[in-house]
Amino acid sequence: MATFKLTDEIIEQIEMFIEEKRNRELISLFEEMHYADIAEIINELDVDQAIYIIRLIGKDKTADIITELDEEFRDKIFEKLSAKEIADELIELDTDDAADIISDLPEERKTEIISYIEDVEHAKDIVDLLRYDEDTAGGLMAKELVKVNENWNVLKCVKEMREQAEFVKRVHSIYVVDDNDVLKGRLSLKDLLTTSTRSNVKDIYIPKVDYVYVTDSAEDVAHIMSKYDLEAIPVVDEMKRLVGRITIDDVVDVIKEEAEKDYQLAAGITHDVEADDSIWKLTKARLPWLLIGMFGGLGAASIINGFQDAMNNFPILLIFIPLIQATAGNVGVQSSAIIVQGLANNSIDSQLWGRLLKEFMLGLINGLAIAAIVILVSHFLFEADYMVSTTVAVALVTVIVNAAIIGTFIPIFLHKRGIDPAVATGPFITTSNDVLGILIYFSIAKIVLGF
Amino acid sequence: MATFKLTDEIIEQIEMFIEEKRNRELISLFEEMHYADIAEIINELDVDQAIYIIRLIGKDKTADIITELDEEFRDKIFEKLSAKEIADELIELDTDDAADIISDLPEERKTEIISYIEDVEHAKDIVDLLRYDEDTAGGLMAKELVKVNENWNVLKCVKEMREQAEFVKRVHSIYVVDDNDVLKGRLSLKDLLTTSTRSNVKDIYIPKVDYVYVTDSAEDVAHIMSKYDLEAIPVVDEMKRLVGRITIDDVVDVIKEEAEKDYQLAAGITHDVEADDSIWKLTKARLPWLLIGMFGGLGAASIINGFQDAMNNFPILLIFIPLIQATAGNVGVQSSAIIVQGLANNSIDSQLWGRLLKEFMLGLINGLAIAAIVILVSHFLFEADYMVSTTVAVALVTVIVNAAIIGTFIPIFLHKRGIDPAVATGPFITTSNDVLGILIYFSIAKIVLGF
Repeated sequence: MATFKLTDEIIEQIEMFIEEKRNRELISLFEEMHYADIAEIINELDVDQAIYIIRLIGKDKTADIITELDEEFRDKIFEKLSAKEIADELIELDTDDAADIISDLPEERKTEIISYIEDVEHAKDIVDLLRYDEDTAGGLMAKELVKVNENWNVLKCVKEMREQAEFVKRVHSIYVVDDNDVLKGRLSLKDLLTTSTRSNVKDIYIPKVDYVYVTDSAEDVAHIMSKYDLEAIPVVDEMKRLVGRITIDDVVDVIKEEAEKDYQLAAGITHDVEADDSIWKLTKARLPWLLIGMFGGLGAASIINGFQDAMNNFPILLIFIPLIQATAGNVGVQSSAIIVQGLANNSIDSQLWGRLLKEFMLGLINGLAIAAIVILVSHFLFEADYMVSTTVAVALVTVIVNAAIIGTFIPIFLHKRGIDPAVATGPFITTSNDVLGILIYFSIAKIVLGF
Repeated sequence: MATFKLTDEIIEQIEMFIEEKRNRELISLFEEMHYADIAEIINELDVDQAIYIIRLIGKDKTADIITELDEEFRDKIFEKLSAKEIADELIELDTDDAADIISDLPEERKTEIISYIEDVEHAKDIVDLLRYDEDTAGGLMAKELVKVNENWNVLKCVKEMREQAEFVKRVHSIYVVDDNDVLKGRLSLKDLLTTSTRSNVKDIYIPKVDYVYVTDSAEDVAHIMSKYDLEAIPVVDEMKRLVGRITIDDVVDVIKEEAEKDYQLAAGITHDVEADDSIWKLTKARLPWLLIGMFGGLGAASIINGFQDAMNNFPILLIFIPLIQATAGNVGVQSSAIIVQGLANNSIDSQLWGRLLKEFMLGLINGLAIAAIVILVSHFLFEADYMVSTTVAVALVTVIVNAAIIGTFIPIFLHKRGIDPAVATGPFITTSNDVLGILIYFSIAKIVLGF
């Protein structure tokens, strides 16, 4: 399939068409396009141009486009659309998408918009979903699902399903409930294709069904669905009553966002910024971590300043500061990244001591290899005397082992405390290893060289 | 749902059961468990224990368990199983999973195993799939799918589908082909539930269907499926003949692996290691990056060594080395991470100059903020004289701006060259920024202080 590629030429052409109000060209251009591609284009326009296009294209398509827009941009567009216009979009959407796109609006505005939705059931479902935190199963689920009563027969099932299916875009599973709406099991579509219409649901349904509670975290839902290869999972309330279902496509976004958040934290960026965000927003996300690094750097400066004797008697020691610091930082990041990733994948059991011992060995091997090279280079390149080379080598090994152990210990410790271990990667671990590394280096120098 | 939690107690209990050959307890223990959970347990056992369990549990379940095992461990298990035993497992699996688990075995062994598969069609499909690179659509796809000829009517469709559905675990879409097997479109299950049995496929199928070519990269497939919210996508060959289909659960793994690879590269780990790998494997993945950092550190040492006058006349300059270095490293990682992530999500257009200007502004703002604090602290804490403080401040701003621009430029440059920009994050960018940062610092000091 030829994938759509957004180019400056497309944007320019569309801007020209809007400018000149060439509606026919615009309509025919968008007709063949996928809504996700149109959303990509609209994200590059200004608010008025975006509204022009949204009003031009038919409602059945714009609703999907709107769900794909950047959130901030969408909110700006919504400011200029009437409550009635927004309501018309919501009517076209599944309840989960409908709830998502208005969740950030002020309460009053939400109420006004929902009052324009004539289908009371749909409105009620949206209002229901707005109650849930977006990071929970409740926030991910949609109300649209196909469910049958355990007391029906297959004939009645099929009849009811046809009606329900009108409102459900994709039928994943048919859930079986009792008279109180409590989830009992599921029917597979395939079974239904191959069973006599006279059978009773009670006799043919599969009682084993995975489910999650509305209050479960989005992350847990993603973990369960990807581990057990589920394409959809029913959501139940505290009384095990069926209240919704989550499909894998919603969870793909959670998995991506989770991985991106961890990556950004490791890179020293508070999560949820993109390259296209404003300079101000990017500064807010980046400056705090730089300040942590800065205080670490000033801490290291104090430590070095405290070793005045070293500076006076062995100035050559100072040229190895970047080496010590870079190595400590790199090892710390490596160790913590592996642990954080293992914890995120639940592939780490918590045998803390065994793991620390392993990191100790690893640090020792890596440290000895690097120290050997450094001794050679510092001898030939910097004509460092024997004792100075020894100091640097011993310090390197110690710093590496120390950084490896800290990089392993802190994420596991945070995880046990219920804190997201990803915050311990990046600048945080680098900074503490930097400062500790410098302290270790000069302390060892003091012992070996005796100044 | 209560998620399964692997504990040391469970492992110990199972090891004891195996030791004492208490088969009945083992069977009843595993009976209620999901295969993904059993795989988690088996991964913690030794090879002989694993084989004991695999031989004990019924084939219908072990096949799925085997697909979930760690690859290396699985290969070890396969060394001790007979070709016939492995073939029996393959028979239970979908063709894509079957091909995956034997793809790393020696050619001879593969041939031997496949010779034991009696179902010729199944064997042929597996052999077909083995030809494709695992990082392509061909490597992801399965042969199992439901397809109908455009010349059939709905009645014939349903009859044929029932037969085909026997071999397909989940029916996502019904693909429509012509007499030459060329993909023409799709039928939705829902449409089929609601159409008269006398209609012709030709008149009711949806001609618009997304598809990928066998040779498309796994990454592209993941991008297309997640962008367009597809649960399954048909795969065609160069003549647009339908050859397989990819489901979203296979793609979830690609998305996760991709994110993890980028994260590990950023952390200075060559990809594909886990916390539980051997010390040797972990060393191989980590040492190369540490060596890059080491050479950077030695390079920085040479630079400092070259500024002997600075060391003699302004030793206080040396205490700020960690600050300069940490800041350069942190800024470089932040900038590159945002760009790499934007490139991975295709959310960055390639307006290089605009982006560099933005990073310049961002660097300037962050740099001025940090420099202001550092001037104050260095004045009060280290009693640095006015000129030295100015040197440090000017150097910090320059280093930050420089690191931000390099961190932005290099990933975009690599991406344009067709190289994975993720290699430019982590130690690579940190090291070059470290070295450049030190050079900038001492050069500015030389100009300002005039030594």
